[in-house]
Amino acid sequence: METLSTKLKLTVVKIGGNVIDDEQELDQFVSSFAALEGAKILVHGGGKLATQLAARLDIPQHMIEGRRVTDEATLRIVTMVYAGYINKQITAKLQASGCNAMGLCGTDANLIKAHKRQSETMDYGFAGDVDVVNAALIQSLLKAGLSPVVAPITHDGKGQLLNTNADTIAREIAVSMSPVYEVRLVYCFEKEGVLRDVINDVSVIPVITAGEVEQLKKDAVITGGMLPKIHNAIAALSGGVKEIIIGKSDRLPQLVQGLSGTKMIHE
Amino acid sequence: METLSTKLKLTVVKIGGNVIDDEQELDQFVSSFAALEGAKILVHGGGKLATQLAARLDIPQHMIEGRRVTDEATLRIVTMVYAGYINKQITAKLQASGCNAMGLCGTDANLIKAHKRQSETMDYGFAGDVDVVNAALIQSLLKAGLSPVVAPITHDGKGQLLNTNADTIAREIAVSMSPVYEVRLVYCFEKEGVLRDVINDVSVIPVITAGEVEQLKKDAVITGGMLPKIHNAIAALSGGVKEIIIGKSDRLPQLVQGLSGTKMIHE
Repeated sequence: METLSTKLKLTVVKIGGNVIDDEQELDQFVSSFAALEGAKILVHGGGKLATQLAARLDIPQHMIEGRRVTDEATLRIVTMVYAGYINKQITAKLQASGCNAMGLCGTDANLIKAHKRQSETMDYGFAGDVDVVNAALIQSLLKAGLSPVVAPITHDGKGQLLNTNADTIAREIAVSMSPVYEVRLVYCFEKEGVLRDVINDVSVIPVITAGEVEQLKKDAVITGGMLPKIHNAIAALSGGVKEIIIGKSDRLPQLVQGLSGTKMIHE
Repeated sequence: METLSTKLKLTVVKIGGNVIDDEQELDQFVSSFAALEGAKILVHGGGKLATQLAARLDIPQHMIEGRRVTDEATLRIVTMVYAGYINKQITAKLQASGCNAMGLCGTDANLIKAHKRQSETMDYGFAGDVDVVNAALIQSLLKAGLSPVVAPITHDGKGQLLNTNADTIAREIAVSMSPVYEVRLVYCFEKEGVLRDVINDVSVIPVITAGEVEQLKKDAVITGGMLPKIHNAIAALSGGVKEIIIGKSDRLPQLVQGLSGTKMIHE
């Protein structure tokens, strides 16, 4: 039985390269996001543009366990591409669709403070792990009717910009807002949701509770690239987020209505 | 005789390439700006980085009367460099200096709406002329103790980003805030001020009234690159800005105290 909540609702949506790299997809997504009712925040990742730009500038890109190693030249590129081109292009499109979007990255008004990732065995370069989200700032922007559009660049408070995972930023923002809002966090990606059978698009599992995750991992239903998404989802639930929805980016209206994707809930 | 004003004071500072392109100059400027008392806004231009990046990417740059022609590839570059790298680097440095800076461009929260420059004889590409500044937004940010850091990229409200002159943006912001604040507008550049003798750095004219400008133009004291700055200054005075100070970027503390540079006032 659902308990009545007096909290206002907030939707946090995260999109990645599959939307950003395809102008038609992006335009469709922007319309859907602009049409979402209530308070909302968009977090975007990077896409191919940074990789392409690095290649054209002959800046070699190193990956460790699927994560980009952010050296100084790469940090400059991701700051330009994520916090500059992508962030402002999306914001301009949202403005044109009647959504009062405000593009920001973590250093703006100290939105997200982070620290350089420490590892005794690996050097991830200028990769940032989130310390704290400025929830009071976000709340005041939402109250003013603004929709923050957040690029995955943070800062350490000492003048250093840091490249930070967008899924993590979306989760940290969702958690930080949960004391005040009833938050749903939507992870958009290229698949219909968590699939029972990875090659079968109609095998979407509609609801997963936090308690079912271990079994689904043992059954090899949750594997590979889905693992970090599910770990983020569990951490978000533990942090007070009401529900997490994982699904296809071109189904945003259906995802928020519970008609598509996989919903992760507490019980 | 000065009349007592009950308006709060606001300082709008514009910096250009000579500060942005030199990290030591930039760091010194950031410290001075962070130390300025009261409400403040920073507007920055571009610098060499966009030109260098365009050259490395083999994107030819065309200039008409000293202004860059902004084709689509160039718009992408200036958006990345101005609204991305430069804007976020300055914001991070200001945050580290204790100034609660918020990096924005014209599309963010509809800060500056513009239109594509129309000309029957020239095609300036995606160059924007300012229509309106969102003064209510800036006022609410200032009231919240934030210092906007504004990149010279605007939008047309229909999804198109536009490259816009930073001196003009600084003036338009200063004018838009003048009904509420007593505004001083500081144009920082590479010279000590308006010089009576262009090769003599100690020949700074300390005060120029709007009425004296025509004679100084006739006397060829105000020529070349100084002309658009003075035209901006006169337009700012007509628009209600209290005073405009033109001087060297590494003298910001002296400029705002009236100990350096050229001050332009109504009478």
